Amino acid sequence: METKKVLGIDIGGTKTKIGLVTQQYNIVDKQIIIYTQNPTPEEVFEKISSKIQYNKWMYDSCGISIAGSLEHSTDKLIFSPNLKWANIDLKKVAGRYIPKVKEFENDANASAWGIYCHEYGMKIKNFVCITLGAGVGGGIIVNGKIYRGAHGSAGELGHMTIDPSGEKCNCGNYGCLETFVGAKYLSKKIKKKLNKSLSPSELFKLAEKGDSVARKIFEEMGEKLGIACANIINILNPGAIVFTGGLTGAKRYYLEKLCKTVKIKLGKYYSDRTKILTSKMGEETGIIGAACLVLHPFHA
Amino acid sequence: METKKVLGIDIGGTKTKIGLVTQQYNIVDKQIIIYTQNPTPEEVFEKISSKIQYNKWMYDSCGISIAGSLEHSTDKLIFSPNLKWANIDLKKVAGRYIPKVKEFENDANASAWGIYCHEYGMKIKNFVCITLGAGVGGGIIVNGKIYRGAHGSAGELGHMTIDPSGEKCNCGNYGCLETFVGAKYLSKKIKKKLNKSLSPSELFKLAEKGDSVARKIFEEMGEKLGIACANIINILNPGAIVFTGGLTGAKRYYLEKLCKTVKIKLGKYYSDRTKILTSKMGEETGIIGAACLVLHPFHA
Repeated sequence: METKKVLGIDIGGTKTKIGLVTQQYNIVDKQIIIYTQNPTPEEVFEKISSKIQYNKWMYDSCGISIAGSLEHSTDKLIFSPNLKWANIDLKKVAGRYIPKVKEFENDANASAWGIYCHEYGMKIKNFVCITLGAGVGGGIIVNGKIYRGAHGSAGELGHMTIDPSGEKCNCGNYGCLETFVGAKYLSKKIKKKLNKSLSPSELFKLAEKGDSVARKIFEEMGEKLGIACANIINILNPGAIVFTGGLTGAKRYYLEKLCKTVKIKLGKYYSDRTKILTSKMGEETGIIGAACLVLHPFHA
Repeated sequence: METKKVLGIDIGGTKTKIGLVTQQYNIVDKQIIIYTQNPTPEEVFEKISSKIQYNKWMYDSCGISIAGSLEHSTDKLIFSPNLKWANIDLKKVAGRYIPKVKEFENDANASAWGIYCHEYGMKIKNFVCITLGAGVGGGIIVNGKIYRGAHGSAGELGHMTIDPSGEKCNCGNYGCLETFVGAKYLSKKIKKKLNKSLSPSELFKLAEKGDSVARKIFEEMGEKLGIACANIINILNPGAIVFTGGLTGAKRYYLEKLCKTVKIKLGKYYSDRTKILTSKMGEETGIIGAACLVLHPFHA
């Protein structure tokens, strides 16, 4: 007897990942769509649809995660700063192209949910997840449920103001966490400091070779993440903060500074209680997270 | 038949308020103890004890709120920056002086609980409460319960970093919200800008008379509170943020700037969804909040 399979679709700011996932969280097939410029929702869903048809994927249901904030009562996307989409009736648009879509969720919430279901086997029930990608997202798990807040947009950790005198963010605010540690902004910083066009993963390779400027950039990133973590601990006092996303691999270059900053900002009575962790799920987190939305449906 | 009465004790950074409270939230008798310098826990509880005995108060049970963060599993006070108390076994020390103490809670959590029980009649079930007093506290109500976090110290909104280049806070961190809007720091700012020693309530009177410097100080306070509110909305997306405490009365001088800042920082898609409110309970919030801990016991 064949195991049940679901489709996990992770619509990010620069690419969409699609995976056919088993109940045991194995990705048996996957596809990536990379955008050259900001696509419309129709363009993205149309491309997803042709991938599904071309690969003749058979699945029981489909979960979609998306880099933006949602209103769950209507399955509407309110706003995605990175995709530049606003007020999209996801259910309607996705339904026109993709069969059996059952759940929509913010991408960072879905990642947190995937880590909760798969990596933590539903045993660590209270943590905050920070996704480091093109943007910076957050997912809050409280008592084994995604904490969505009153209108569904809780966990927008990337748009927390870290320094009001900072750079303008895609969202319109100044000095958001994302403007210090998001891959897009990091690339700009690299260009300025190294006078080279490098992606954050190339910056990581440079740091590995011992380049002091590259290491300094990661250290500054650690400091800003430390301020964010201290704020999160002050506000939410989670059992753990878990990092995931593309830059998790470079943790040896920013984690020490991050933890040191948390210690300085929180003081001796609080700094050691919330664990700072990194997820082991790697780049599959997005797809697994989207799949977990339908493998383990969650209704707030 | 006499109604049940409870004792609500609110131990703050500069004073302790004690009230005999009915089940209908009426304060039938109250006392205030003002400290001249940082007292020890024993000194405070001894003074409370003599007030109780002198007034011959009869009560069924007693709730105590305190300006610091607690570990609920052990009823220990971990740290109070304003009282300069750390690692205090509250149950043991309070029990030595005061009979029938049933609950301990962080003061801002207790205020939020009091607003939830009394002002909102348990009908508004999701909101964040910010207390503006000597310090700045926070209480988070989620689904009609106090959200305490993993170790009991959630809601420390006053120690959120608003500007990392800011002044040193009592807690050891730099640029905490409290260093911009807490009464203690506000007094220092008044001294510097007006060259006068005024309390924040005297500053309010000055603003009422049309003093532009006084009004400017409140406006700056509104801006910092706006940054904090935007962060809270990004992280928690609460249904409402409710202000309480000594400076609520001066709201006409900071609320406009606060709301404007939230609007700028969150953008058009998010800024109007979370209501910004002020509590009507006034200076009795502390005592009522502490009383509500035993009138409506809450166990996380």
